[in-house]
Amino acid sequence: MKRRGFLMASVAGAGLVLAEEAGVGGIAFAQADPLPSWNDTAQKQAILSFVQAVTTEGSPDFVPPSERVAVFDNDGTLWVESPIYTQLAFVIDRVRALAPDHPEWASTQPFKAVLDNDLAALSAAGEKGVIELLMATHAGISTEEFDAVVTGWIATARDGRFKRPYTGLVYQPMLELLAYLRANGFETFIVSGGGVEFMRPWTEAVYGIPPQNVIGSSIRTELRMVEGKPVLMRLPQVVFIDDKAGKPVGINAHIGRRPIAAFGNSDGDYEMLEWVTKAEGRSLGMIVHHTDAAREYAYDRNSPVGRLVRGLDDAAAQGWTVIDMKADWGRVFGFDG
Amino acid sequence: MKRRGFLMASVAGAGLVLAEEAGVGGIAFAQADPLPSWNDTAQKQAILSFVQAVTTEGSPDFVPPSERVAVFDNDGTLWVESPIYTQLAFVIDRVRALAPDHPEWASTQPFKAVLDNDLAALSAAGEKGVIELLMATHAGISTEEFDAVVTGWIATARDGRFKRPYTGLVYQPMLELLAYLRANGFETFIVSGGGVEFMRPWTEAVYGIPPQNVIGSSIRTELRMVEGKPVLMRLPQVVFIDDKAGKPVGINAHIGRRPIAAFGNSDGDYEMLEWVTKAEGRSLGMIVHHTDAAREYAYDRNSPVGRLVRGLDDAAAQGWTVIDMKADWGRVFGFDG
Repeated sequence: MKRRGFLMASVAGAGLVLAEEAGVGGIAFAQADPLPSWNDTAQKQAILSFVQAVTTEGSPDFVPPSERVAVFDNDGTLWVESPIYTQLAFVIDRVRALAPDHPEWASTQPFKAVLDNDLAALSAAGEKGVIELLMATHAGISTEEFDAVVTGWIATARDGRFKRPYTGLVYQPMLELLAYLRANGFETFIVSGGGVEFMRPWTEAVYGIPPQNVIGSSIRTELRMVEGKPVLMRLPQVVFIDDKAGKPVGINAHIGRRPIAAFGNSDGDYEMLEWVTKAEGRSLGMIVHHTDAAREYAYDRNSPVGRLVRGLDDAAAQGWTVIDMKADWGRVFGFDG
Repeated sequence: MKRRGFLMASVAGAGLVLAEEAGVGGIAFAQADPLPSWNDTAQKQAILSFVQAVTTEGSPDFVPPSERVAVFDNDGTLWVESPIYTQLAFVIDRVRALAPDHPEWASTQPFKAVLDNDLAALSAAGEKGVIELLMATHAGISTEEFDAVVTGWIATARDGRFKRPYTGLVYQPMLELLAYLRANGFETFIVSGGGVEFMRPWTEAVYGIPPQNVIGSSIRTELRMVEGKPVLMRLPQVVFIDDKAGKPVGINAHIGRRPIAAFGNSDGDYEMLEWVTKAEGRSLGMIVHHTDAAREYAYDRNSPVGRLVRGLDDAAAQGWTVIDMKADWGRVFGFDG
């Protein structure tokens, strides 16, 4: 059954874009610049011309609305990931909050490292240590309890540099891009290495992306009856890591359709970008390059978070557009002047 | 970012339902009966009053549009599952199609049983045999190749009794129900024990449910580069069985939000119905009871497909509505008089 209708989407800070979304196509009448926080560079033009090509009926690149799928990495692509991933900040706060119930943590690594704020010891604990911390803070409670914990934390936690909620540290140009794509009939998804249930409690309010459009790493859940009611318990067992080659796997498992646009910022997004752009038909692959130490951060090849090496080396040959945050974004955050 | 708009959904065989879907709620103006293939019984009334309650702003049961999620089992709930699951008919046809490349199957069970049409031997092969058949017919090719195989089969295969395509054996009252819910701001999902990639190639055309809204059982996929292009190979390893206690797990993993309406037909849907209806707030749980041997099939407690025992025993106590196919449906199929 086809759905015909008129969608009117308000685009943040940009007046209105009125889009007629018909069963067979779509026409967008831009009444104002839909991407006001983007400087007028080739990068912005790449987005506009891609959207025009795939939404113009009769264009050789036309894509019907139901196949207009766009995927976005989260950490470093939609919100800040430096100096540490936000989910790691959550883990650290959560270990501290739970410590009174775990006196043994005062003398057990990697918990002791967190409680002592000992980054060297934490680093020495390696990936095994991180997984141990993740399981201690993410498992052993129900999905509803975990949702409440995340919701409470995200509402109160503040980052160290900007002294703002983490959900305030989302990139204004990317919010505009999400809204612009949706106004042109795209469905937008997050495809992140982060925990899916760490993101879902807040992505709809912050990005306009509902929980069912969030794909991420996950741990096992198990149905149990507790006092006559079904609950899903979170078990300390990783079932899926949505990073690198896992991203196309996650996209296929969740969406079942190949996206035509992908946005990332690190080499963890390389396979996703290839999956989207090495396919038949017009596509758009973009990499957010963190080049602005003044307004945000500057890092790439040697960064412990969001390391970007292959993406930079291969972008030109792959046909991917690199966004230079400093040059291409007029504002980084909504609170920027 | 909220989306405001006017959705006009054509409801099969029922004229038009015009629904104003606003960011804060939704009002449906029924210009014609939205469920014309449903007889005017308590079951139809249960659907109408539920939808009215959750979509009427100011109602104590009001649910905002983004939380209006409805889940549907597929086999026996949306389309025919008797005398054998359609996916098993696909397996049988596929074994026959692949047999020339596998001369050893002529003397190896369970393949020999399929080739000889020997149901006793096939039954004796048990679950292990079925999994062997599934893997031989569902794995070893890429996701795109499998999509093409399913698409070709579903377009040409005919069932034994009605001599129609399987996608023609979908229940007209349920198509109307899907459209009616969507016209009232619901997002509709399939939650099936069937293979997710067996359903996705055709659910959008048949049910109006796009691939990203189909949840099912799945096998492992792995990213590989073939002639410079990324492909996802289907490996012979089950990763998720979306049945019984797996249904709430699948719903949570995929949707991340608890549905408010669930529709099933067998005990494989019991935990899904409990997950949806044993929660805060108004909800609707319905079971399609196959009672019409003349127009479709009649089976429940002793059936090898769609066995329904606990659902019938507990429906009243659980507050679930049982749909009596013979009494409640004026038509079963679109081709019925």
